[in-house]
Amino acid sequence: MPLIVQKYGGSSVADAEAIKRVAKRIVDTHNSGTQVVVVVSAMGDTTDELIDLAEQVSPNPPGRELDMLLTAGERISMAVLAMAISDLGVEARSYTGSQAGVITDSVHGRARIIDVTPGRIQTALNDGAIPIVAGFQGVAQDTKDITTLGRGGSDTTAVALAAALNADACEIYTDVDGIFSADPRRVPKAAHVPFITYEEMMELAAMGAKVLHLRCVEYARRFDLPIHVRSSFSNQEGTWVLSQTAIKERKVEQPIISGVAHDLSEAKITIVGVPDKPGNAATIFEAIASAHINIDMIVQNVTTAATASTDITFTCPKTDRELAVKTIESLKPLIAFERVEFDEEIAKVSLIGAGMRSHPGVSAAFFRALASANVNIEAISTSEIRISVVIRASDTDKAVQEVHTAFGLDADGEAVVYAGTGR
Amino acid sequence: MPLIVQKYGGSSVADAEAIKRVAKRIVDTHNSGTQVVVVVSAMGDTTDELIDLAEQVSPNPPGRELDMLLTAGERISMAVLAMAISDLGVEARSYTGSQAGVITDSVHGRARIIDVTPGRIQTALNDGAIPIVAGFQGVAQDTKDITTLGRGGSDTTAVALAAALNADACEIYTDVDGIFSADPRRVPKAAHVPFITYEEMMELAAMGAKVLHLRCVEYARRFDLPIHVRSSFSNQEGTWVLSQTAIKERKVEQPIISGVAHDLSEAKITIVGVPDKPGNAATIFEAIASAHINIDMIVQNVTTAATASTDITFTCPKTDRELAVKTIESLKPLIAFERVEFDEEIAKVSLIGAGMRSHPGVSAAFFRALASANVNIEAISTSEIRISVVIRASDTDKAVQEVHTAFGLDADGEAVVYAGTGR
Repeated sequence: MPLIVQKYGGSSVADAEAIKRVAKRIVDTHNSGTQVVVVVSAMGDTTDELIDLAEQVSPNPPGRELDMLLTAGERISMAVLAMAISDLGVEARSYTGSQAGVITDSVHGRARIIDVTPGRIQTALNDGAIPIVAGFQGVAQDTKDITTLGRGGSDTTAVALAAALNADACEIYTDVDGIFSADPRRVPKAAHVPFITYEEMMELAAMGAKVLHLRCVEYARRFDLPIHVRSSFSNQEGTWVLSQTAIKERKVEQPIISGVAHDLSEAKITIVGVPDKPGNAATIFEAIASAHINIDMIVQNVTTAATASTDITFTCPKTDRELAVKTIESLKPLIAFERVEFDEEIAKVSLIGAGMRSHPGVSAAFFRALASANVNIEAISTSEIRISVVIRASDTDKAVQEVHTAFGLDADGEAVVYAGTGR
Repeated sequence: MPLIVQKYGGSSVADAEAIKRVAKRIVDTHNSGTQVVVVVSAMGDTTDELIDLAEQVSPNPPGRELDMLLTAGERISMAVLAMAISDLGVEARSYTGSQAGVITDSVHGRARIIDVTPGRIQTALNDGAIPIVAGFQGVAQDTKDITTLGRGGSDTTAVALAAALNADACEIYTDVDGIFSADPRRVPKAAHVPFITYEEMMELAAMGAKVLHLRCVEYARRFDLPIHVRSSFSNQEGTWVLSQTAIKERKVEQPIISGVAHDLSEAKITIVGVPDKPGNAATIFEAIASAHINIDMIVQNVTTAATASTDITFTCPKTDRELAVKTIESLKPLIAFERVEFDEEIAKVSLIGAGMRSHPGVSAAFFRALASANVNIEAISTSEIRISVVIRASDTDKAVQEVHTAFGLDADGEAVVYAGTGR
C-alpha cells in the first residue's frame, strides 16, 4: 500500500471550517487505499498570539519556556483535526513531536532534527488509524526538554518523518498551487513551475521564497524524497521538487531560469574599520555562529590602503539583528574595529536557475534589467545557480517585475526562457 | 529548608498582569528561604474556549483527543508564568504533567493519579530553580497517552505532588480568602472558617462547594498533608484543612456545623417502573459505573404493591446526563423498566458539620428551616456529617440563606453555633 505524508500549514487549518475541509481531504486519501500520515502547523495566527502573550510578560523570555509555550499551538490544531477526522468515521490519533519520536539538539527556537524514531506512528498505521503529528516541534536528546525547529519547521518535520517511514512522497499543502517564477502577489504574470530540482528549490528557499523551508529541502535531497507542493484549496497538481535524475526520468525539459525570489526579512550589518589582519573575519563569524545566527551574503570591501582596515558587510534575519550587533560589539576588545552599522530597509532579490551555470551572460542581463528599472545595487553575491543583489526595500516591486519580464518568465509572454545576451 | 507546593487556579493567572502578580508572590516566597513548587491551571477561560473549538468540529470528540486539546491550556499558562518569574531574576522551569511524573490510569477526561515520580522536579529544586508544573494533566501508565484529571484536577495534582515530595504544606490559591460557611455570593453573612477537618471538607466538596476538589482532599487526608486554601489577591490567612488531631494540637475549638453548601451542576434522573426483582439495581449501577459516571444521592421509592415495580432516582453531573440516560436506555432489554425521566432544574443543598453526628436534632431543624422558607423537598440523603436535600433550582437562594441563619452561621449573628432543638 502506498504511504504518503501530508503537511498542512497554518492557513489550511485557520478555523473550524478549514479543519473540516482538510479532514475530508485526508479521509478521501485514506479511503482511496493510501496510508496517510499528517503533519500539521498551528492554526492561523495562534503562534503570533502566543508570542504577543509572552511579550506582555517578559521582554526576553528564556528559549526553553518560549518553546514550551509555542508548542501549545500545534497541540491544539492536531487534536482538533483528529476530532474532525474521527467525526468522518475514521480513527485518528494525534502525537506531539516528542511522542512521534522527533529527536533534536537542544538549541531552543531553532533546533535541528538529529533522529526520527516513529515507533508509535508505525503502530497507529498498522492499526489502520491516521496519525496526526505536531509539526515544528521535537524533544532534545540530552535535556529531554521540548524544542521548536524555527520558521517553517513543520515542513522539515514532514519530510523527516516521510524519510524515516520510507514514504513514497511528502505533500506540502499551502494556499497557492505550488511554486511560481516570482511572488504572484507582486508579479501578476508569475508563471507556475511544474518541476524543480532540490538545488534550485534550496536556492529559492534560502533567497526568501516562503513556500518551502530550506532545511526541509536539504533533508528531502539527502533522502531523495519527492516533495509535492500543492494547494489545500484545489485538486490541481502543484510543483514537484525532485532530483535532476528524477526530472529527466519524467522526460521534462528544464528551463534555464526557474524564478525570481525576493526577501524583505533581512537586515544588513556593516562592521566599519576592521583592521586588515588574518583571523579577524574568522573571529567575527565564529562568534556569530556560536550565537546561532544564520547569516547570508558576506561581502568584504577592498582594503583602504591608507588605513590598512576593511569593511565587512553581511545580512541576517531582522529578528537576529539586535543579537548580531551585540555579539559583534562584544568583540571590540579583541578586534578594535571602528563601529557597527545596520540597515533594515533593504531587500534581497535573487535570480535562480540550474541552467545559468552554463550561460555566462545571465549576470550581465540581470544587472542590465535592474539598471533599466533605475534600481541601485548595494551588494552582490553569486553561486553556481543563483545571483543575488541587495537593493533598497522600496525598489523591490519594480526590480522583481523588470527582471521577471527581462528573463521571459511572464506567463503570458514567450514560453521559452531567456538565454542571456553577450554570451 | 521548608518546602511548599503552591497551586494557582485559572482566575489567579487570568491575564498577563495577574501572572506577573503571581510571579512576584512566588519569588517572594522563594527569596524568604522556602523551596517552592508551583502547580498552575489554564488561564481564565482558556479551557472553555478550547471546548468551544472542539464542539465546532465534532459533537462528540474522542476522549483521547479532547485531553490532548485541553492540556494545551496549562502548557500556555505554565510557560508564561515561568517567563514572568525569570524576568524577576529567578530561574523557573515549566514541566508538563508527564514530565513531572504524574502517572494516571487511562480513563480520558477523569483519569486517576496512580503514582507520582517527580525526579525532574527534585532536580530542578536541587539546582535552585522554581519548577512550574501543569495541573490537571498526566500520562497514562499503559497507553502513554496524555490524560486529564477532570474538574478541579489541578488541586489534586498539587496535593499529589506535595505528598510525593514530602512537602510541609500545599497552598491552594483562589480568588476568595478560603472556606466560608456558605457561598458568600449568595449568603452575604457567610462567615470565614479558619480550620476544617478533611472529612468535613470532603463532604463540602462532594456537595458542590467549588473551592476544593473532592479527590484532592481524599489524597491529602491519606497522606495527612496540611492544605492551606487562601486568596492570591491578599496576604490574609485562609482556611487550613487538617486532621482532627492536628486541629486539636492547634488548640482550636471546632464548631458543630461548619457550613451550608449548594450545587446547581447536577441533574436528577428517575427510572420509572423498575420491576421489583433482586439484582436490577446492581445491573443499573454497574452499567453507570462502567460508563464512568459519578453519581450521588441514590433514592429508591417504596414499591407500589399493585404493580410490583419501583422508581429509582439518582443525581449526576448535568454533563453526564445524556450518557447516563443512554446507558440506562440500553438496559431496557434486560430490565424492562417503564421509562427514564430527567430534570435539570434542581439544586442540592447540604448542611455539613463533624459535630452533627452527636446532635440528632440537626436534621429536624434543617427540614424546619426549609419549611419556613416554603421550600419543597424532593429527595433526602444523609451521612454521618452531612444532610442533603434536592429542591427546585429556583429555591436555592432562599433555602441556603434560611438554613444559614437558622444554624447561627451568619457572620454578624451569634458567634456560637446552633446546637439544634428537640434533642
